[in-house]
Amino acid sequence: MSLKLFFAPGACSFVPHAMLEIAGVNFEPSMVKLHKGEQRTADYLALNPRGQVPVLVDEGVVITQIVAILLHLDAKLPQAHILPASGMERTHALSLLAWMNNTVHPTFTHFFMPQKFSDDQAAQKAMQRFAVDRYRECLQEIDALAAKGSPWLFGEYPGAVDAYTLTLLRWGGYAGIDPTTFPAAWALAQRFAALPAVAVAVERERLELNVYKPAA
Amino acid sequence: MSLKLFFAPGACSFVPHAMLEIAGVNFEPSMVKLHKGEQRTADYLALNPRGQVPVLVDEGVVITQIVAILLHLDAKLPQAHILPASGMERTHALSLLAWMNNTVHPTFTHFFMPQKFSDDQAAQKAMQRFAVDRYRECLQEIDALAAKGSPWLFGEYPGAVDAYTLTLLRWGGYAGIDPTTFPAAWALAQRFAALPAVAVAVERERLELNVYKPAA
Ligand SMILES: N[C@@H](CCC(=O)N[C@@H](CS)C(=O)NCC(=O)O)C(=O)O
Ligand SMILES: N[C@@H](CCC(=O)N[C@@H](CS)C(=O)NCC(=O)O)C(=O)O
Repeated sequence: MSLKLFFAPGACSFVPHAMLEIAGVNFEPSMVKLHKGEQRTADYLALNPRGQVPVLVDEGVVITQIVAILLHLDAKLPQAHILPASGMERTHALSLLAWMNNTVHPTFTHFFMPQKFSDDQAAQKAMQRFAVDRYRECLQEIDALAAKGSPWLFGEYPGAVDAYTLTLLRWGGYAGIDPTTFPAAWALAQRFAALPAVAVAVERERLELNVYKPAA
Repeated sequence: MSLKLFFAPGACSFVPHAMLEIAGVNFEPSMVKLHKGEQRTADYLALNPRGQVPVLVDEGVVITQIVAILLHLDAKLPQAHILPASGMERTHALSLLAWMNNTVHPTFTHFFMPQKFSDDQAAQKAMQRFAVDRYRECLQEIDALAAKGSPWLFGEYPGAVDAYTLTLLRWGGYAGIDPTTFPAAWALAQRFAALPAVAVAVERERLELNVYKPAA
């Protein structure tokens, strides 16, 4: 088995990164420095023309999109419990994963990279303001789910949606949203980060969990 | 088996709608008129607090998110070939589905419902302009894939990504993008609409395939 993951510290690629460590398989982590624009080098664009992380390369085959990477790994490594194995639990976890990926994550992108949605500076500012409010609402929804799930969002195994929760909550800190104001989600993120396998990914990415700085 | 699909004519719910018809199973189609705001009635919000279609109700259990609905139906109705059954074909189809759902579809939303991203009118206009250009690029990517796939994007069975292609190409018409300028994708969409099972869904939604109107 040859698996290579292209990831960026703190990016959404943390989700497959953490799940690969939980799976306990051998894989080659390859760091892409987004702040240095490494995702736009000719070599990287040859790998992923959309210039984004994560990319998983499995026996030379390139796979993009978090959801597809996770479902691919889930089929290959069922012991990792990336998603519940079957039934309505699986469907509900997939629904949450899809929403995190198509709504919550892009809402943060409107704050973090508004230039992806408009080249007008005033429009970017307006969009950022609006996105932060929507993002807070999304985190509230996740917090309510975390308050019901125990110990993880879907039962006894830490999975993809728990990893995404950590990432999304961390990102909130950059947008001025204090993660500790979502007590259930924040406890879940801390519990997830403390898993010995996940700690390896956290350390490799040098992740600080709470990046929130109160306004002076 | 009791399946009920909440859909809106011309909306993204066409994807599960078409696939249910292809599956040839009994289901109850329930129309939600988005232009009349029926997605924001108390009854509908009790079903889906996010006020969106599609919603699938399977034996009383509510399922939201296109990707989760499709994977749920795919597990339940393998004869429908909603996605390739396994292997790299399945992974690649899931990757395309995820991208259509998290990038192409939301890009159109920036044009169609800019109020979801800003309450500032000037910002909405700037965002719409920008989104139309990005949307055209997305459709070009899909067209290139359609030119390689035969007869369908992933081999011999019409599936979820073919249905999504039809929807996304149709939407382009509202944004002033002529679908016939993407010859391979346009041929695929027409071929898909002409399948007898799909024609039932097209007729129920009263879909006109090409809504593009050249500027006078
Ligand atoms: N739709 C993609 C989104 C991936 C994405 O947003 N990646 C971000 C990091 S979180 C990225 O690479 N951004 C760098 C850039 O766009 O320049 C997925 O689900 O995998
Ligand atoms: N993330 C959702 C998106 C669903 C969505 O965008 N639905 C639109 C129709 S295409 C809708 O119901 N819009 C009505 C509204 O938002 O008021 C999914 O993948 O199912």
